Amino acid sequence: MSATEFSLEIHPRFTETDGLGHINNTVIPVWCEAARTPMFEIFNPELDLNQWNLIVAGFTVVFLTPTYYGKSVIVKTYVSRIGNSSFELTQSCWQQGVKTAEVKTTLVHYDYRSEKSQPIPEDIRQILASLNGEGA
Amino acid sequence: MSATEFSLEIHPRFTETDGLGHINNTVIPVWCEAARTPMFEIFNPELDLNQWNLIVAGFTVVFLTPTYYGKSVIVKTYVSRIGNSSFELTQSCWQQGVKTAEVKTTLVHYDYRSEKSQPIPEDIRQILASLNGEGA
Amino acid sequence: MSATEFSLEIHPRFTETDGLGHINNTVIPVWCEAARTPMFEIFNPELDLNQWNLIVAGFTVVFLTPTYYGKSVIVKTYVSRIGNSSFELTQSCWQQGVKTAEVKTTLVHYDYRSEKSQPIPEDIRQILASLNGEGA
Amino acid sequence: MSATEFSLEIHPRFTETDGLGHINNTVIPVWCEAARTPMFEIFNPELDLNQWNLIVAGFTVVFLTPTYYGKSVIVKTYVSRIGNSSFELTQSCWQQGVKTAEVKTTLVHYDYRSEKSQPIPEDIRQILASLNGEGA
Repeated sequence: MSATEFSLEIHPRFTETDGLGHINNTVIPVWCEAARTPMFEIFNPELDLNQWNLIVAGFTVVFLTPTYYGKSVIVKTYVSRIGNSSFELTQSCWQQGVKTAEVKTTLVHYDYRSEKSQPIPEDIRQILASLNGEGA
Repeated sequence: MSATEFSLEIHPRFTETDGLGHINNTVIPVWCEAARTPMFEIFNPELDLNQWNLIVAGFTVVFLTPTYYGKSVIVKTYVSRIGNSSFELTQSCWQQGVKTAEVKTTLVHYDYRSEKSQPIPEDIRQILASLNGEGA
Repeated sequence: MSATEFSLEIHPRFTETDGLGHINNTVIPVWCEAARTPMFEIFNPELDLNQWNLIVAGFTVVFLTPTYYGKSVIVKTYVSRIGNSSFELTQSCWQQGVKTAEVKTTLVHYDYRSEKSQPIPEDIRQILASLNGEGA
Repeated sequence: MSATEFSLEIHPRFTETDGLGHINNTVIPVWCEAARTPMFEIFNPELDLNQWNLIVAGFTVVFLTPTYYGKSVIVKTYVSRIGNSSFELTQSCWQQGVKTAEVKTTLVHYDYRSEKSQPIPEDIRQILASLNGEGA
């Protein structure tokens, strides 16, 4: 793991396989959400659900090759774009050295009470910039 | 469906299969929770999450035969026990006329603010009694 | 529902909510997979897992507004692109007349034994064309 | 972890919370299945789906207190009964030193081709006996 990205090891769960004998396509967004925990902590250090301040605007998943049961998966996460109130994460899933999927997710700094997006505070922006794997 | 039970038709989802080619065992509690919606409405007619007043104390699942993808499943729900603050639901899953699983769930009428169980109100108790498939 | 699209009614499950009180973002791909069943049947009328011949190449989800518990959701599906061996589905989720999410999924006609994509047969191509909501 | 049990650390996923702000009741069986991986490996060292030889006969879940997001959970697993072809696992979930749930699962050594239960082989029986937390 480089200094500019997060990494999470996932042990695929039996229930995450499907009748084709590999990990179902809908599971990859679940793993990527799990791998975003360190990003959530940057915005909400105690992971307090009552202080939640991020919302998912959308995501794109590209499958490169199937992911299998019985071998661990590494999900790597870096910041690929920083906007005014939103930012994009690029995440990749790796199994036995092979990249199996790539996910780009746009998250918005959001106030759930006013239901409005909020500018990313400067201190957080600097942390995101340090996780920016491909020049901002 | 008899007058004393609820019934929900489920179309098994592809992602609910597992590598053995049938519905994964962890999915049955999910379907049974879905089939409890009419029970939730008895306690909380608008299904308002801020007024939620039931908590699951536990459940038991018995698998009789595998459940398969591609054929609908009927989940039947009746009240099998009514206590002071808790009650038990018995639910069964049927696919092509075969009973595949049976689930017994104990639910408690609960105040999430005081974190205390509450007696079941008399009007709700009478509704539950009318859904009591096997003599109270 | 127009003649050129499929429609599935979903009753959001309690377990599909998250700590923010609405449907978690990872659930939308699950619903859209469920809503693709009629497409699966075009390629595999008995939904036989041993004859499965489609693979997901990727998908994009855009969230427009939160989806809530307690109100049904309609998932509409139409064919938005037909290629040689792949095609794209555009799906939208509607709750109380409001479009909450849009998903575009690329599926490939695939031979799991040879692990190779296969041209879409002409008879299936004609069926897909009839479901093509926006001029091929 | 004592010599006679397995232990798995789980990081609760955001999607595993529900609208009440804690981990949904249907998630506990999923975690317990994940924590059974070392048991699966005893019966099927490569976790080969084509050689799978265990089936779940049933399980019972008791919830003691809610499980929350943001703090890791330890799932402890030991063998609580060994029969001729079946055995029972007792699993408990612990969060910050508090036991939140207990699950008892009956698994059967099973031949998926003949669809029949099989006696537990003697070498495996001895391994299970060594994981037997409460005198056989």
